[in-house]
Amino acid sequence: MNDTVMFDAVASPDKATVVFTPSGLRGEFPVGTSVLQAAQQLGVDLDSTCGGWGVCGRCQVKLSTGDFPKHGINSRAEHLSPPTEVEVSSETNVLENGRRLSCSSKILGDMVIDIPSDSQVHQQHIVKEAGDHDIDNEPAVKLYQAQVPPPNMHEPASDLRRLQLLLLQQLPVAHLNCELAVIQQLQPALQSGERHVTVAVYHTAGNQAEIIAIWPGVKERVFGLAVDLGSTTVAAHLCDLTDGKVMASSSVMNPQIRFGEDLMSRVSYVMMNEGGDREMSVVVREALSGLAQDAAIKAGISTEDILEMTIVCNPIMHHLLLGIDPTPLGSAPFALATDWAVTVKASELDLHLNPQARAFVLPCIAGHIGADTAGVILAERPDLTDQVTLLVDVGTNAEIVLGNRHRLLAASSPTGPAFEGAQISCGQRAAIGAVERVRIDRETLEPRFKVIGCDLWSDNPDFARETANINISGVCGSGIIEVIAELFLAGVINADGVINSAMAEKSPRVVADGRTFVYVLYEGDKTLCITQNDVRAIQLAKAALYAGIRLLMDHLGVSSVDRIGLAGAFGSHIDVKYAMVLGLVPDCNLELVGPVGNAAGTGARIALLDRHKREEIEQVLRRVEKIETAIEPKFQDHFVAAMALPHLTDEFVELGKVILLPEKTQAVATEGSSRSRRRGRARKV
Amino acid sequence: MNDTVMFDAVASPDKATVVFTPSGLRGEFPVGTSVLQAAQQLGVDLDSTCGGWGVCGRCQVKLSTGDFPKHGINSRAEHLSPPTEVEVSSETNVLENGRRLSCSSKILGDMVIDIPSDSQVHQQHIVKEAGDHDIDNEPAVKLYQAQVPPPNMHEPASDLRRLQLLLLQQLPVAHLNCELAVIQQLQPALQSGERHVTVAVYHTAGNQAEIIAIWPGVKERVFGLAVDLGSTTVAAHLCDLTDGKVMASSSVMNPQIRFGEDLMSRVSYVMMNEGGDREMSVVVREALSGLAQDAAIKAGISTEDILEMTIVCNPIMHHLLLGIDPTPLGSAPFALATDWAVTVKASELDLHLNPQARAFVLPCIAGHIGADTAGVILAERPDLTDQVTLLVDVGTNAEIVLGNRHRLLAASSPTGPAFEGAQISCGQRAAIGAVERVRIDRETLEPRFKVIGCDLWSDNPDFARETANINISGVCGSGIIEVIAELFLAGVINADGVINSAMAEKSPRVVADGRTFVYVLYEGDKTLCITQNDVRAIQLAKAALYAGIRLLMDHLGVSSVDRIGLAGAFGSHIDVKYAMVLGLVPDCNLELVGPVGNAAGTGARIALLDRHKREEIEQVLRRVEKIETAIEPKFQDHFVAAMALPHLTDEFVELGKVILLPEKTQAVATEGSSRSRRRGRARKV
Repeated sequence: MNDTVMFDAVASPDKATVVFTPSGLRGEFPVGTSVLQAAQQLGVDLDSTCGGWGVCGRCQVKLSTGDFPKHGINSRAEHLSPPTEVEVSSETNVLENGRRLSCSSKILGDMVIDIPSDSQVHQQHIVKEAGDHDIDNEPAVKLYQAQVPPPNMHEPASDLRRLQLLLLQQLPVAHLNCELAVIQQLQPALQSGERHVTVAVYHTAGNQAEIIAIWPGVKERVFGLAVDLGSTTVAAHLCDLTDGKVMASSSVMNPQIRFGEDLMSRVSYVMMNEGGDREMSVVVREALSGLAQDAAIKAGISTEDILEMTIVCNPIMHHLLLGIDPTPLGSAPFALATDWAVTVKASELDLHLNPQARAFVLPCIAGHIGADTAGVILAERPDLTDQVTLLVDVGTNAEIVLGNRHRLLAASSPTGPAFEGAQISCGQRAAIGAVERVRIDRETLEPRFKVIGCDLWSDNPDFARETANINISGVCGSGIIEVIAELFLAGVINADGVINSAMAEKSPRVVADGRTFVYVLYEGDKTLCITQNDVRAIQLAKAALYAGIRLLMDHLGVSSVDRIGLAGAFGSHIDVKYAMVLGLVPDCNLELVGPVGNAAGTGARIALLDRHKREEIEQVLRRVEKIETAIEPKFQDHFVAAMALPHLTDEFVELGKVILLPEKTQAVATEGSSRSRRRGRARKV
Repeated sequence: MNDTVMFDAVASPDKATVVFTPSGLRGEFPVGTSVLQAAQQLGVDLDSTCGGWGVCGRCQVKLSTGDFPKHGINSRAEHLSPPTEVEVSSETNVLENGRRLSCSSKILGDMVIDIPSDSQVHQQHIVKEAGDHDIDNEPAVKLYQAQVPPPNMHEPASDLRRLQLLLLQQLPVAHLNCELAVIQQLQPALQSGERHVTVAVYHTAGNQAEIIAIWPGVKERVFGLAVDLGSTTVAAHLCDLTDGKVMASSSVMNPQIRFGEDLMSRVSYVMMNEGGDREMSVVVREALSGLAQDAAIKAGISTEDILEMTIVCNPIMHHLLLGIDPTPLGSAPFALATDWAVTVKASELDLHLNPQARAFVLPCIAGHIGADTAGVILAERPDLTDQVTLLVDVGTNAEIVLGNRHRLLAASSPTGPAFEGAQISCGQRAAIGAVERVRIDRETLEPRFKVIGCDLWSDNPDFARETANINISGVCGSGIIEVIAELFLAGVINADGVINSAMAEKSPRVVADGRTFVYVLYEGDKTLCITQNDVRAIQLAKAALYAGIRLLMDHLGVSSVDRIGLAGAFGSHIDVKYAMVLGLVPDCNLELVGPVGNAAGTGARIALLDRHKREEIEQVLRRVEKIETAIEPKFQDHFVAAMALPHLTDEFVELGKVILLPEKTQAVATEGSSRSRRRGRARKV
């Protein structure tokens, strides 16, 4: 994945390595190349409409400085040419925002360049979009107006008391405290607002409330940020707290990636490096502040008007965000420091919002089951239905929730990152140029595919023209599931997962590679092959997932489930039929299986907009039975059994026929494309 | 008061002005003089037992750097000679504590030198000592031990939850929250304490509680600091929160004095100087941190172990401490920003205690009636008795509380600082060398007096020898009351307050001074005279005090009171008989009048040691009727009437006889000396 594309013969002192985030694309370029040119050569998704003349202001980028041991890069400010006049005089305030125009910036040395989401033509496919859940708008932070009577020596009372008396007429609370910072601002606000002020009140459990901000005169809107803090991607939705509307969304790669791609390598980094946890806390907090600023700019508001942030994340991100050493989460017994929701001042986490803003971090469930799963439960509420519901959120681990209103179980299964395209020879993240859909002709074994950034299949006559500017660079998670399932359905891979050497005689695409065989999916600038190791990696991942699910089914005493919700980016993009072909999830009526979108992020948004749900989720979580796969002997049994690719059940025979029928392929592909299906399908059933 | 004593003919570039705090004594000295010599020449109370050889380490001082416009001094580090070898090698760590040995430090330029209280031989007489009130020991901060079971994968629960479950068995609280800082330290503490930890729990109203600190293993004691933050003096008592004992006391001059001697000049400074309130907040917060450190050193503990500070102060100090602009308190309608108690993290006030320590500031009552009066009420509890109680706390303003369990009234009367020795030609603060007791022979008009620092009367044959090292420099508040009352009783001053010119014929001590006459009390290095203006200043002050008291009596509908408690340093040192002679307070059985000590500071200590009293005082204050003297026409009437020195009532005739009887004088003086009487006399009745 991190192969450096060489744009000249050999690396030399006159060349510099550039890594673009969030795509992860990298290349070597002659010193003096503009950042825009480099991005275009690599196929980085970077907007530019004026042809590099510094006029459109769309190609803004941001230099990430510091040491990036993961990339072997020391990215320094002086590795970028000084700002040009064009940038200084730009009307977009590019420099003030800490950005550069990539067309005017020349590469002088190694560097990491971030493409802000508003500089991308195609918003990143890993952006987790805010769904259209119906959420009661009862936020923790509410605005109240008051015309405060002037002080009066005949009835001495402090200005705060006068204000509180008015507010208590509007507020159904027993106590109304007031932040010292507000007391400090109270009299100046009363004076400049001619005794009319707007206050923000933060409501907490048990009818407690506190005045946390004050403005002179009328203030109409304040905002909150719901954050899904993933180990790879951080996504935020800026919501208007007065009506619950999503004003802007923003996402960024988790900057901790420089310390380790996966969570366990980040924990290792902490164990090996004194102060490593602090380093990682700092960068992730900065990323959250950056997202807040980015979303605020998009929505045309000030970050001063953001009064709350709610956050979902896995346990290790949770501890790193909160400044808790995650080392105990790296080995048995995987003890969380806290499994309560955490409410703190955002400033305690160094988040640059309103100085009095609060941060609410949803509770983790167990050492491997995080606040993100709490968010999924809050979004999907399996505890409110009689249906036995299976919720699966696949990341580096798979978090699994199973149950209904009577019992609810949760576990985490160590799938590894194969489903995300890591540990796969041609794997890559879902970004422009990644193969995401694959069909293989059952007779000729010739593939057809689609890549992110183009709507056409590769056998379309216009495909070559439409993808001329796209660098077909790898296969993303959904593409890998499809290509392996298709290879299985086409008989190239047998039930044990072995690439059948006999097929080499049938098609030149199956070729020997040492003692095993590979399937050549694509030959272009880069050759994309599916190797025996790739198949093994997917087998291991899917066996872990399936075994975890079966373990929970055993504990619940059920042999089938009533509905399956696939959460997260993986769940949104995977074609569930192929997931069933590979046996990722148990048999279930296909109509009752579907993506539930970024349910974790939705959970953060629900918690942001409806404070009562915060108490509810804490109550629900107390009932969740946590199953630790590591100490369950049956997990190993299930795991071994699940390594095989499943025999086709009757339903799968039907499904197989549909997929096999050449004339139906196009229709199925369209119907099955997660990008054309809307989230929430599983909710309807 | 700020007359510079000249120790050489004229000021020249080879001379430097040195001001010593907290005494306020100042002088000019040839460059090269040691700080110890200068202090000794001025009679500054500075310890030294080795004769200036740098051996005893007792003469430690601290240079106060910065601009002191009040003193016309720019005190700079380079105005003091560099540290000597003696200081570097001193075993007292003098330099590390930011101090110098005064015997080794030479004066090179103008400077302000602070004498830490532990370098004083006689602790300052304005030190407010902790009384021996019986206080229930139910502090907000309590320690609890817990042996936390190890994590267990079969019953996953966070370490915090395991700890809380244990604590909730010991604690009668509904909720037990936990500071993020403690969550961060929890697992390391569990590890190093082998799962045994001690936690500090902060209890608040309504059975809420929060874990605010954690230690591995057993922690036996934590501490709290009760602070009386006066406009002139700041005094602190360090208490062991586990048993309520006072461990150490410490006091310091309020460093805001450099911005203005009295409160109104400090408010003016804020109005005239952008950011002036911030400047004053900073210095007073630094002073509180310094007191905490000083007290901690004395008690041999770390400031890290101080977990709470409670504070009483007047409204302007209250606002300046809390970072609230006090300007609205400078003019009608004198609106407080808040009249609630304020609880904040001490770190929000930049106080250097335990990082999670809390600060509790008692509530102000009205624009002129502060949290110090709340402290007096909390210490004396007039609301719990049927007796009509009058409590008077004389500072620059006099705070007056009158009432009983049925009604309670409060007012502030603008006495000005005359009772503290300011505005009096020979006046000075109560410090070594100040005249504090005076008797005048009714026939010869010859005076006898006592000065602070010597137990003998001036007519004792040993007086001259005993005061050889004392610079008799002025008359303090109690001395002024006595000398004027004695002059009145001796007929030197008539009922209108006029110094009787006829007396000039009777005694050489009454001499003409322009168109009026003065009484010469003492002729030495400095001549101490009582002028006609001095008498007028005391008349104005006592009239304001009396008028305020009468106004409250009118409102309460009483013509006499059942007991009188005189609070504060003034109340402790004044001889109540003389106060009655001058008519400071209304007629009352002398047995039922007495000092109540530093009742405000006692209130702070009660609030520190018994959290339930915090709620009680808020309840009591809600019932207090605030009387604003400025808008009461009758106040003026009472004021004018009270200017006269009172005719002697029958009781006063008796009293006058006692005082007049020469053979009884000594006995009365001894009995009447506030320094030989213990506080709390009024409480006994």
